[in-house]
Amino acid sequence: MLLLREVIGSNLRAHREHQKRSLRDVSASARVSLGYLSEIERGRKEASSELLASICDALELELADLLNDASTDLRHRAFIDERSGVAETAGDKEVRLVFGQDEREVLSV
Amino acid sequence: MLLLREVIGSNLRAHREHQKRSLRDVSASARVSLGYLSEIERGRKEASSELLASICDALELELADLLNDASTDLRHRAFIDERSGVAETAGDKEVRLVFGQDEREVLSV
Repeated sequence: MLLLREVIGSNLRAHREHQKRSLRDVSASARVSLGYLSEIERGRKEASSELLASICDALELELADLLNDASTDLRHRAFIDERSGVAETAGDKEVRLVFGQDEREVLSV
Repeated sequence: MLLLREVIGSNLRAHREHQKRSLRDVSASARVSLGYLSEIERGRKEASSELLASICDALELELADLLNDASTDLRHRAFIDERSGVAETAGDKEVRLVFGQDEREVLSV
């Protein structure tokens, strides 16, 4: 099961990397230590709500958008987990491939 | 500005009340003290990711849905704040009424 800090952390990292910004740059803007920001991105430390707001500010990112992306990631992960659970139960490579195909179809909607 | 713990807390409370469950009931299921759960619902304490997962379990609520609702609330709040900001700048009751009407139109889409 994915925890909130893990899904938020990986989304923060994705936004920072998409902007081609360094941990040092964002940590300075958000007034958080580089090490702590790195731990947050890796989902190892919880960010307080104030700190999260500050990191979002530094990334010029709306908290609403971050939460929306996190929600989408969690649904996607639950979908994959559910599918792979069924495939594992079936214990059949061909079944797994079929599920892989279904997944692409659904995800490309 | 709304903080994450405030918007999550009020959504947790709304879900609990919608299910007509008491703080005592949910706190026992989620294995958190009644007082702490109450503080979380009021946005006064941060819930760790593990505790949040536990409260969601107790409410039979997907974390993805909670985050999606929180995202929607934040957008709604930002929209209202923006509108009232413009109306206040205009300092005119009639302008405020027009904005109120726009708001209902947009919200009813």
